[in-house]
Amino acid sequence: MDGTFVKGFLDPASVALIGVPRATGKGAFNVLENLLGFGYKGKVFPINPKLDSILGFAAYPTVKALPQVPDLAVVAVGRERVLDVVRDCAEKGIKRAVVVTQGFADADKRGGELQEDLSQLARASGLRVVGPNTLGVINHFAPFSTSFVDIPRDADPWPVSVVCQSGIFHAGPESFTGKIGKGIDIGNACDVGFTECLEYFARDPQTKVIVIHMEGLKEGRNFLKVAARASKEKPVLVLKTGRSEAGGKMALSHTGSMVGEHQVYRAAFKKTGLLDVADPEELTDAVKAFLFLPPIRGKRLGLISFTGAGAIMMADACEAYGMEIAKIPHEELKAIQELAPEWFRVSNPLDIWPPIMWGGYDRAMDTALKLLLESELVDGVVFISAALDSPLHSDLDPEERLKDRPYKETKPVTAWLYGDGTQQMAERLEKSTGVMVYPSISRAVSALSILYRYHLLRKRKRVPIEEIPAAKAREEVLMGEKALRLLDESGIPPAPYQVIRSEEEALDAASQLSYPLALKLISPMALHKTEVGGVALNIRDAHGLINAIRDMKDRVSQRDLTIEGFLLQPMVNGIELIAGIKRDPQFGPVITFGLGGIYTEVWKDFTLNLAPLDKGEAYEMIEGLKGKAILEGIRGGPRVDRAYLVQLLLDLSALAIEMPQIRELDINPLMASPHTCLAVDCRIIFG
Amino acid sequence: MDGTFVKGFLDPASVALIGVPRATGKGAFNVLENLLGFGYKGKVFPINPKLDSILGFAAYPTVKALPQVPDLAVVAVGRERVLDVVRDCAEKGIKRAVVVTQGFADADKRGGELQEDLSQLARASGLRVVGPNTLGVINHFAPFSTSFVDIPRDADPWPVSVVCQSGIFHAGPESFTGKIGKGIDIGNACDVGFTECLEYFARDPQTKVIVIHMEGLKEGRNFLKVAARASKEKPVLVLKTGRSEAGGKMALSHTGSMVGEHQVYRAAFKKTGLLDVADPEELTDAVKAFLFLPPIRGKRLGLISFTGAGAIMMADACEAYGMEIAKIPHEELKAIQELAPEWFRVSNPLDIWPPIMWGGYDRAMDTALKLLLESELVDGVVFISAALDSPLHSDLDPEERLKDRPYKETKPVTAWLYGDGTQQMAERLEKSTGVMVYPSISRAVSALSILYRYHLLRKRKRVPIEEIPAAKAREEVLMGEKALRLLDESGIPPAPYQVIRSEEEALDAASQLSYPLALKLISPMALHKTEVGGVALNIRDAHGLINAIRDMKDRVSQRDLTIEGFLLQPMVNGIELIAGIKRDPQFGPVITFGLGGIYTEVWKDFTLNLAPLDKGEAYEMIEGLKGKAILEGIRGGPRVDRAYLVQLLLDLSALAIEMPQIRELDINPLMASPHTCLAVDCRIIFG
Repeated sequence: MDGTFVKGFLDPASVALIGVPRATGKGAFNVLENLLGFGYKGKVFPINPKLDSILGFAAYPTVKALPQVPDLAVVAVGRERVLDVVRDCAEKGIKRAVVVTQGFADADKRGGELQEDLSQLARASGLRVVGPNTLGVINHFAPFSTSFVDIPRDADPWPVSVVCQSGIFHAGPESFTGKIGKGIDIGNACDVGFTECLEYFARDPQTKVIVIHMEGLKEGRNFLKVAARASKEKPVLVLKTGRSEAGGKMALSHTGSMVGEHQVYRAAFKKTGLLDVADPEELTDAVKAFLFLPPIRGKRLGLISFTGAGAIMMADACEAYGMEIAKIPHEELKAIQELAPEWFRVSNPLDIWPPIMWGGYDRAMDTALKLLLESELVDGVVFISAALDSPLHSDLDPEERLKDRPYKETKPVTAWLYGDGTQQMAERLEKSTGVMVYPSISRAVSALSILYRYHLLRKRKRVPIEEIPAAKAREEVLMGEKALRLLDESGIPPAPYQVIRSEEEALDAASQLSYPLALKLISPMALHKTEVGGVALNIRDAHGLINAIRDMKDRVSQRDLTIEGFLLQPMVNGIELIAGIKRDPQFGPVITFGLGGIYTEVWKDFTLNLAPLDKGEAYEMIEGLKGKAILEGIRGGPRVDRAYLVQLLLDLSALAIEMPQIRELDINPLMASPHTCLAVDCRIIFG
Repeated sequence: MDGTFVKGFLDPASVALIGVPRATGKGAFNVLENLLGFGYKGKVFPINPKLDSILGFAAYPTVKALPQVPDLAVVAVGRERVLDVVRDCAEKGIKRAVVVTQGFADADKRGGELQEDLSQLARASGLRVVGPNTLGVINHFAPFSTSFVDIPRDADPWPVSVVCQSGIFHAGPESFTGKIGKGIDIGNACDVGFTECLEYFARDPQTKVIVIHMEGLKEGRNFLKVAARASKEKPVLVLKTGRSEAGGKMALSHTGSMVGEHQVYRAAFKKTGLLDVADPEELTDAVKAFLFLPPIRGKRLGLISFTGAGAIMMADACEAYGMEIAKIPHEELKAIQELAPEWFRVSNPLDIWPPIMWGGYDRAMDTALKLLLESELVDGVVFISAALDSPLHSDLDPEERLKDRPYKETKPVTAWLYGDGTQQMAERLEKSTGVMVYPSISRAVSALSILYRYHLLRKRKRVPIEEIPAAKAREEVLMGEKALRLLDESGIPPAPYQVIRSEEEALDAASQLSYPLALKLISPMALHKTEVGGVALNIRDAHGLINAIRDMKDRVSQRDLTIEGFLLQPMVNGIELIAGIKRDPQFGPVITFGLGGIYTEVWKDFTLNLAPLDKGEAYEMIEGLKGKAILEGIRGGPRVDRAYLVQLLLDLSALAIEMPQIRELDINPLMASPHTCLAVDCRIIFG
């Protein structure tokens, strides 16, 4: 399963088309007709028992009747016939099939069952299936296409490969990637999925940028492993849709309603170096940047504006997209300052309008460009230019100023143009100067920001992502002492505790701990101690302790709960945090961290990442809290040493990897003080 | 100052061009040449003492030498000569001037002084000035333009009028409004500003949509008054730039660093019914929607997709833009369900691909459109359609399906197209069917969402915005008792308190209050009591009280502070809030509200709005808190009655209007319990 078989889908020497319709022309959606129009040069075998020939090709009644074994079968028969047809293909010795047919897991229960059967058939026979519910594959290089929509072949394709769950990425690339070279619509992904396609494209020399359109994923950690490798080879952009869907929510005991699936996906993408994009427009912008701009090495931008208003919009965009306006000492701006009227003080963003009016366009633009392109304080350049059709302004043309500059090898340059000549000038600039033009100032800046995100992700040392064997465990819940002991053995220090069963033991234990104390019920039947009155806090003395035990026994006996004993703990001061493990059905163990109590509940202030974590990631989880200032010591509160928290998260991560049978683990509260970080209570669910 | 004079800027019968250059043609930026090219039919008087004639027009040495008084002067001389020239204009009897020249408040100190002089000259002479630092005005209807950039006249202008602070809105409307009818670049706005232009365009019959590009505002509450009226007449869209600029920050004593200017602007826009847009693309989308779509009456959208993937993206977009997917009972979808294969269950968004494959495009699209356009559960419709150039797909054409439907009068319909035929189909659809096509699914949904925002803003009853006379007051600070008394007189109940000066008085007072008590220093020199040790909390008995007084005296005497006395209060339980007034230099009194303590400090969880508030706005300020769940009663905390908080905010608002001399007022903390809401401490700054 290293993905090499994928090539056979994209460039088969022969193909059987099963279920080719009789009709051709308008409204027929005839795969054969489209395939021929696309320029396919291989052998074609249409299969239709009711036809002798179609479009000049001899038709065969079944796959078994074919004179040779084709490289690929494209199956477009009614859903009830698909299994028989694919079985025939396997028996004939065909290795690959695209199942176009709809009405499987995308539809009703019967469809789900049919898909499960198809999936099993693929596994049992070794015949690999793309689909069902797909437009199949497209390859503008080969050329080859299985599309029942007539897509014109692009004679000059971009080295962009798409793995998607919808044919619109093949049929309408203008709206998503600009152009496309190869595409695999995995549809319902009953067999071939994202992982193998990604693995293939990562090594495909005709692919420079990989684009993934993902609605959902079934391949979990294996996908992560491959993604982490692929993203080192080339940029992998992910458009994840279905963020608003309810399904698949995680159910952390405290944060259950808050941890949307999408957050886990985002964490997974970031961890493996994939670049998630917010929408199709950001995707288009990014593809263009990765294909046609040199890499960026930092976030300091040099900005050239034609107008003061534009300079302000550029500054707004830099802040919005996390880029910096390069700080350039006025001394270094001398060359351009000299072209401006004396009342005008130049700074970055350079408003070159006054220098244009004083010294002419060519000198102003030449000077500004040279300055920013050569400055060591600048990592990338964005400029604004008027693009006016009027012959009176044909002198305002950046093209000549940009040609023959060596920046193409060193710094990315993007531009935004305004005026009635925008489209023509944009085409000229992109063709002859390597500057990429974007439809707004924001997008010109955002395109560089995604290059910068890629720069950071590539630089980063990655935690190796291991497969974690699925561990079977019977459903079991550990609470109180047992849970704290497990933490203790894993290097996570619990707050001191003693288990007591009688009043005498309690007084004994109290003398070893120190007042004020907390008393907690131990009962396997009480998942939520507070709710059954199983927690008493701030017990100040022996008298209080005895009363607390008696009161608790009273309350608990009214509810018919077994009392295994009580946990006695000193009250721990500090900042209340929570931390935990939650097994994601897709990606395995997820580590969560947050401020405790109402902070998590009301402000949803928590972070998460997939295990295993490295130090940097643990640090990021702490820094990612909106309320992190609380950890700095605020209003006389303690300042918490980050090192303790980082260590705790790393220990949790190790525990999550070592014990895959943990389904859920919640440390709540975790009390952090300047020099300790203690688990006060914990609940662990196996299974 | 009702704005009627603005007409004379946009449609003058005669114009003097002062400082016309000798050069014409490429790179000359010659206003006269451009004006003639634009098709101006009025009288033109070029002024240049060094020329006899230019472009066939007799040139005059000065304004005074003109044979008649022109309606308008366009001044483009060096900045040092501007004042003399404008004075000449005024003396000649000219009523309006556009000052194109740069180098005023946009430049150095000298420029600022020159602008101040120009401003005074305008006020003194009655000659109205647009500029300086401007491209001036443009009017594609008249036609008339003062632009030194050659902008082609649009023979078919849109009824869109722009008031801006940059010429790019005149020269590059493609990037901002699509097209433009009239535009006034107010530049540095030394005289004519947003308010008068807005007032004029609100009543101009050639204007259906008003667009404002604002960097900053000097006209404050007067602008608000006019904006509130204008936005009832027609949609007013505002693109506010410079959000990342540091300047002009408000300095609330606790929230000073957090209340960005931009939040106050946003509050002002919302209050007056202006629609702020995030970026130029949203602006373009909105203009098109307001010009060419009927109003929307609700947020329930009927969605038609060609693909399952598109349906998911539509759902994502609805959530992102606050629109709802109309809930349509399956019963009402019968007509389209009947066209689909039995395994396919139709719901909104309607994926019509299976119905197309089963029953053909025409029937599927007709049925889906009829259903959604006629449903009373649907307020607007968005559809996705393939737009493929291939003759094999010429049947997939929504144009015929949309023509001759009465929806244009009832519901807005937007679309997103994909495929190589997108541009052509978009043009056809927009022209012949009134459907507006947008470049992404998100933008097709977002365009309807801005229509919905306008619907809500129009429906809303507005608080009349009064001018608040600037009140002079000497700088003065009220704290403790004095501040609480002022609140009390304004209907805002303070927590009980007694002022004491001796230990005896303290014990006396304590017997009338109830322990635990709080003791607070009264000293005009100590603005921040906590920092000087001037606060003692949770005093449990008489002994503790005496100690607290002695300790505080000790601490304070070490700092050489005058002690006027002490404030004694019972400890008040409840939820800690803050509320206050802050005078914005632009818009006058701003009311702030938030959760107290670290919530404000760490999570920046507060809201604000301009006074006067109405009940709805007060309620919104409470609902706008991210942590509002705390007010609902959480973890055994009290549930606060919203009515008390609303009343408090209304009382604060009334106080702010009645006492314009208040520069800053902070109630901190404000303690809210189920049935009270008490000001525990307060500081008021006058001046």
